[in-house]
Amino acid sequence: MLEIVVIGIGSGNPEHMTLEGIAALNAADLVLIPRKGPAKADLAELRREICERFLDARATRIVEFDMPVRDATGGYRAGVDAWHRAIADRYRVLLERETGAVALLVWGDPSLYDSTLRILDLLAADGLPFARRVAPGITSLQVLAARHGVPLNAVGGPVQVTTGRRLAAAPGEAESVAVMLDGDCAFRRIDPDGVTIWWGAYLGMPNEILISGPLSEVAERIAETREAARAANGWIMDTYLLRRG
Amino acid sequence: MLEIVVIGIGSGNPEHMTLEGIAALNAADLVLIPRKGPAKADLAELRREICERFLDARATRIVEFDMPVRDATGGYRAGVDAWHRAIADRYRVLLERETGAVALLVWGDPSLYDSTLRILDLLAADGLPFARRVAPGITSLQVLAARHGVPLNAVGGPVQVTTGRRLAAAPGEAESVAVMLDGDCAFRRIDPDGVTIWWGAYLGMPNEILISGPLSEVAERIAETREAARAANGWIMDTYLLRRG
Repeated sequence: MLEIVVIGIGSGNPEHMTLEGIAALNAADLVLIPRKGPAKADLAELRREICERFLDARATRIVEFDMPVRDATGGYRAGVDAWHRAIADRYRVLLERETGAVALLVWGDPSLYDSTLRILDLLAADGLPFARRVAPGITSLQVLAARHGVPLNAVGGPVQVTTGRRLAAAPGEAESVAVMLDGDCAFRRIDPDGVTIWWGAYLGMPNEILISGPLSEVAERIAETREAARAANGWIMDTYLLRRG
Repeated sequence: MLEIVVIGIGSGNPEHMTLEGIAALNAADLVLIPRKGPAKADLAELRREICERFLDARATRIVEFDMPVRDATGGYRAGVDAWHRAIADRYRVLLERETGAVALLVWGDPSLYDSTLRILDLLAADGLPFARRVAPGITSLQVLAARHGVPLNAVGGPVQVTTGRRLAAAPGEAESVAVMLDGDCAFRRIDPDGVTIWWGAYLGMPNEILISGPLSEVAERIAETREAARAANGWIMDTYLLRRG
């Protein structure tokens, strides 16, 4: 029987691995590592580093594969659906003759803005028999809050977790908004009056960058810092918290 | 110089501790463990268990203290403010002659519905000199999603993280709502049409309970299960995810 174990590995600092995640990795017979092209080679490298550091079981096979690339030309949702389908097909080819435990290493936490669980739903709908297990991991939002030393919520208040795309389309009036997947500095589209931002890039990594302050004062500095860092590193992952009042 | 290290310890499963959290615990000279009365003795016990299991440094002092109790009679916000003030005063007495690293162990993650960081703000405003550091931990919401094997967000969609109190007051129309701190089954106050619920109690613990399904079909079973479990254990911590459509 095939068991697929989805392991959250945190946002870039191997010290964020949980004991459960390390045990699940060591219990795996096979670890799949996606390659996402040269621009994101650092991300595959983190997964290799985690295997190198934490795998005691030398018999564990590590298989790298090329991750399908998302086609953004046909609209967001259609592109995402076709991409998930392509990834599921790739997994099926890799897994249909496997038995035992297979580990998939997910950046952050598998429950937040990650497609792995939905792709497993597609595989199950295709008729591939497998059990699933999930080991949660620390998200970049948690590292952001930790490194700035602030809570995500105001006292007893809600937190809206959303994407840059959504924030730009509908800024809303929520008190606390945590934004992920923003490639376009959507924080510049909202009314900055009374808003504080806590921003972080490469969270948990040696090249981590943190900026915080009144949005009206630091928005441009964040945008410039972000662009320079992306140019220097070839990629960037960043996230931020906005709070009104 | 005093350094206060706030360590997220997860929702009840010691295997959710991160390597960073374990290292921070071992680097502490003093660990403070709050006692919250007999009904919540299990929660103090988890902190003792984590110290017992992970502390290699035998010189580390472990000091237990009685946590002030929140007075809910004068309104929610006033009660919370007075309670935070009382906890800060307690910490100041415990810490004003300390140097070195002091660890505070926080259930879940310090960034989500936990008052420790705000209490440190009060201590700093009082003039106590200290540095702060935060080690993020796995929240019960992440364990909930992991154990049910579902993501918190729909594809590219937002997640509203809120409290039972807020959900009851303003159910709203958000697609994905994750609810914490609900002592009153606020999920019964919303229109269940088209809503799925994933509920969990004692997440990560041996007595974990999971129920999921259409809200219209499982709401009463969750309420009954919750009441019976609370009566049997003397306390309950539970959380849930709601999704429309």
